[in-house]
Amino acid sequence: MKPSGEDQAAPAAGPWEECFQAAVQLALRAGQIIRKALTEEKRVSTKTSAADLVTETDHLVEDLIISELRERFPSHRFIAEEAAASGAKCVLTHSPTWIIDPIDGTCNFVHRFPTVAVSIGFAVRQELEFGVIYHCTEERLYTGRRGRGAFCNGQRLRVSGETDLSKALVLTEIGPKRDPATLKLFLSNMERLLHAKAHGVRVIGSSTLALCHLASGAADAYYQFGLHLLGSGGLPREAGGIVIDTSGGPLDLMACRVVAAGTREMAMLIAQALQTINYGRDDEK
Amino acid sequence: MKPSGEDQAAPAAGPWEECFQAAVQLALRAGQIIRKALTEEKRVSTKTSAADLVTETDHLVEDLIISELRERFPSHRFIAEEAAASGAKCVLTHSPTWIIDPIDGTCNFVHRFPTVAVSIGFAVRQELEFGVIYHCTEERLYTGRRGRGAFCNGQRLRVSGETDLSKALVLTEIGPKRDPATLKLFLSNMERLLHAKAHGVRVIGSSTLALCHLASGAADAYYQFGLHLLGSGGLPREAGGIVIDTSGGPLDLMACRVVAAGTREMAMLIAQALQTINYGRDDEK
Repeated sequence: MKPSGEDQAAPAAGPWEECFQAAVQLALRAGQIIRKALTEEKRVSTKTSAADLVTETDHLVEDLIISELRERFPSHRFIAEEAAASGAKCVLTHSPTWIIDPIDGTCNFVHRFPTVAVSIGFAVRQELEFGVIYHCTEERLYTGRRGRGAFCNGQRLRVSGETDLSKALVLTEIGPKRDPATLKLFLSNMERLLHAKAHGVRVIGSSTLALCHLASGAADAYYQFGLHLLGSGGLPREAGGIVIDTSGGPLDLMACRVVAAGTREMAMLIAQALQTINYGRDDEK
Repeated sequence: MKPSGEDQAAPAAGPWEECFQAAVQLALRAGQIIRKALTEEKRVSTKTSAADLVTETDHLVEDLIISELRERFPSHRFIAEEAAASGAKCVLTHSPTWIIDPIDGTCNFVHRFPTVAVSIGFAVRQELEFGVIYHCTEERLYTGRRGRGAFCNGQRLRVSGETDLSKALVLTEIGPKRDPATLKLFLSNMERLLHAKAHGVRVIGSSTLALCHLASGAADAYYQFGLHLLGSGGLPREAGGIVIDTSGGPLDLMACRVVAAGTREMAMLIAQALQTINYGRDDEK
């Protein structure tokens, strides 16, 4: 695998430099396609067409990313969000594995609500090596690489150092299940945090961008049940934060649940406040 | 009152053209101050300092806007959000009245969560004549003028035509009261909409920007209890939408509650689903 000229001058770039650079280029290209689709959708008058469009763009972008990466890295494995969300079993092995969410914030995308991102993660030996996220409408490229920090458009990110829940801005997402029992638990968790006097709770419709806000220090905590494939899960850690399981134990990439925070104290406060919502595992379907 | 050269060439600009232009210039200047404060706050390490900072910037921006407008339009009246939020009685008379929210999304601002806007509204005979909103971090200027449409950075806005709640993206805000009874009602309202199969619910922390998303067609409905002074309340109407009271009746600018939607059908569906949260009136304190 021949690295680029720049890489040759920088041996410290590490063994996955070419993969990282490929992810950045593909995230930017995918973002262009999504931005174009968002503009064109403005001329579509019915939501039925919009729903068709989202499927089309989702598949188009997923195919683009996977086909290019497969050609360049034929021995690598791939896990894509669309498959996971549709209930397919996804097994994360020790092999180099790409974790791809072509449009994170699909519901936002359908409505042209401008909080939509491309997420490309890369794991080796079941550990996230890097994550590349592109906020399509605001043209912000977030990157996090294991042991090398997190950045937004080249500017280093740093989580907040907040440990007091009453001063915390907390992000969460509703999750895909909408049966009455699941909704009750979702709302009850939000109520517990508001009773505990969380300064604010926000629901923006993109778990990937929630992780980016957390890594930037613009939010102090994030939790969610029912999300698939945390390809961007390494970002807060690289910005000095912590990402754990909602039980308070270590993060499990296949468990469909997460708590992330700027500090361990904050993460544990959130984990302790939450009731579990059972979504099963991505590798047991 | 001498209009600018451009205005002389455009008599159709209407009697409040100079006021509108002043609002645009002040919103842009205020936005610059807020953006600068957001950047400088990054160097402040404790949240106590951040809380001080928000007060400082809020007052600085409110003073800037009001002092400039008072000098240019000495006979006009002023209602500012900071006064209304602190419980002062605000009476909207028939006189030309400026309705100013220097930083909408104060909690976001404290956390540097990038959803923060300046809102300058102008009412005559208790009717909103125009609203100017500046999304500080994304540099988007939204304007709505009675009978003349709504725009974002010069591009005309149009609400969504959605009438089916199950296809709707709905925006809301938690509101300032956090006692257990109010929180129960807030969460119960969200539960009712999710049970009614609203496609998504978002909480972004700025009622002004929620109205902008609605006017842009990026959301299908917005409701809130406990907001003050809807200076930007005219925006959805100018984009073809509807803004009503949560009871289903006409909007009452002093009632601290609102439902806005792209269509009357959608607004009524939302109004019918909601339980009232009593926040009193801005003119009865």
